[in-house]
Amino acid sequence: MEVLYCGICHSDLHQARNDWGWSVYPMVPGHEIVGRVTEIGDEVTRYKVGDTVAVGCMVDSCQQCDQCRKGLEQLCRKGNTQTYNDRDRITCEPTYGGYSKRLVVREEFVLRVPDGLDLSKAAPLVCAGITTYSPLRTWNVGPGSRVGVVGLGGLGHMAVKLAAAMGADVTVMSRSSGKEADALALGADRLLVSADEKAMAKAESSFDLIVDTVPVKHDINPYIPLLDVDGTLVLVGQIGPLNEISTVPLLLGRRRVAGSPIGGIAETQEMLNFCAKKGVLPEVEMIRMDQINEAFERLERSDVRYRFVIDMATLMA
Amino acid sequence: MEVLYCGICHSDLHQARNDWGWSVYPMVPGHEIVGRVTEIGDEVTRYKVGDTVAVGCMVDSCQQCDQCRKGLEQLCRKGNTQTYNDRDRITCEPTYGGYSKRLVVREEFVLRVPDGLDLSKAAPLVCAGITTYSPLRTWNVGPGSRVGVVGLGGLGHMAVKLAAAMGADVTVMSRSSGKEADALALGADRLLVSADEKAMAKAESSFDLIVDTVPVKHDINPYIPLLDVDGTLVLVGQIGPLNEISTVPLLLGRRRVAGSPIGGIAETQEMLNFCAKKGVLPEVEMIRMDQINEAFERLERSDVRYRFVIDMATLMA
Repeated sequence: MEVLYCGICHSDLHQARNDWGWSVYPMVPGHEIVGRVTEIGDEVTRYKVGDTVAVGCMVDSCQQCDQCRKGLEQLCRKGNTQTYNDRDRITCEPTYGGYSKRLVVREEFVLRVPDGLDLSKAAPLVCAGITTYSPLRTWNVGPGSRVGVVGLGGLGHMAVKLAAAMGADVTVMSRSSGKEADALALGADRLLVSADEKAMAKAESSFDLIVDTVPVKHDINPYIPLLDVDGTLVLVGQIGPLNEISTVPLLLGRRRVAGSPIGGIAETQEMLNFCAKKGVLPEVEMIRMDQINEAFERLERSDVRYRFVIDMATLMA
Repeated sequence: MEVLYCGICHSDLHQARNDWGWSVYPMVPGHEIVGRVTEIGDEVTRYKVGDTVAVGCMVDSCQQCDQCRKGLEQLCRKGNTQTYNDRDRITCEPTYGGYSKRLVVREEFVLRVPDGLDLSKAAPLVCAGITTYSPLRTWNVGPGSRVGVVGLGGLGHMAVKLAAAMGADVTVMSRSSGKEADALALGADRLLVSADEKAMAKAESSFDLIVDTVPVKHDINPYIPLLDVDGTLVLVGQIGPLNEISTVPLLLGRRRVAGSPIGGIAETQEMLNFCAKKGVLPEVEMIRMDQINEAFERLERSDVRYRFVIDMATLMA
């Protein structure tokens, strides 16, 4: 496939800088990839030349285990193969991502971009989109669900848009009221200021699901009492050790804390179809390839609304 | 009701000694109570004089809110009324528990002890029993479920017996192999030594539910990777702040950590009926009332297999 657009995920920055200690160089980051099929293998049946397609965070899995058979390739028993900074299952060669002119991917890990989805904005859906869509689906969000979103970055703004499109009542939780206008513009019903103790006390037991998208270590204790009985706070950011959680509100409300990674291939396709149908797209800031270092620096300061996307035509230039 | 037997819960010790800071004296502890109806009010319809009955951790709730209407009185929006060391909802007088000759309780909070349940052993069912039965039911344990139990005390030994009676495959997790014979005798299929790194690695992703009954602060991180995808570790002990939990296995396996308190009245009755049908009873050590201080001291050293019960006839003596 020819790569047309590639989103910039915070994990690109982490891996480019070896923050997690497992980076292998040379590296080509990028796992929010949209493009067009330019050539197909002899046995490819699902796609033809010219199709608009997308590739997300993984490009292979064992395809044999119970999880893969259930369409949960992201939870493959043998581990999925990451789109970059990983090893090909057959050749053991490094995998290279979407900051690139072209990509070769097995068809089982290629998504179809439905007609009507703006290609220049669709790329972040296959990471930021699916990572928030999957927990909303896993915890059965629908009309009337009371959903909270913590963190209003690349993932958080998608959580707001997706939950709202599912018919949920959406509250953005933020330290200050500064993001209120943005939250409402994205489709939230309100903003809850987490520093406002009275407002937090009033919101106790009033959420079915809280999606916590904050990408760095933080204290989740203030949010747990906001969950109603049997409610779940789901973490979608891999942030290492959590602060100490109090068991008191967990037991007193049978509340739950969970983690959720990306989704499987079938669910990712479902999400793309849902976004096409509902007109859900991320807010993106388009950059040229030669602006990547500046974009990384701005990302580090959370200075982006809400996702950078690289126009890959500028790589050729 | 005349109190015949009263179990000793670890929380009796905590409250007698004001470990939680909210004790009011004089106090009569005891919320694992079995006895016989000696007198009924004019409007009582459910019980008659002579019935064998039980009373657990709560004696009242608002009876109006959504939780009460769902039979989840333990999660009453206005808070349930604890059997002792609490205040009566109407008179505001202190509530006094089961270390006593007799008790007056509104019929909605009285359980029926089914025929065939040994009265001298049934008392711990209405706290230790329901506290472990409720999460087993909430998380749909049944034949083939893979259940782990951490901690083999009053609650843990009931978790083993109840999960086994439900048809689950039960593993006791313990720091050493010293409790293996006991675990097997209680109905567990095996004991997993948590200090054995190889055995722990081999057990990764092999549990649907882990019931953690340890009553003091401890590190739950070693147990989380043992959960299979979508598996839950449920805490039933109110142990304050947990150690820092790593988000890595939470996200990578969509694993969950939850809390669970006692059950509602209907579920407690269901549990008593289940225990009568399946012949499930706690292991108890009967004591006289004048042995209470010694029993408290032994409880503090975990020197009991597995629950003390006071023969209340010895109070009269």
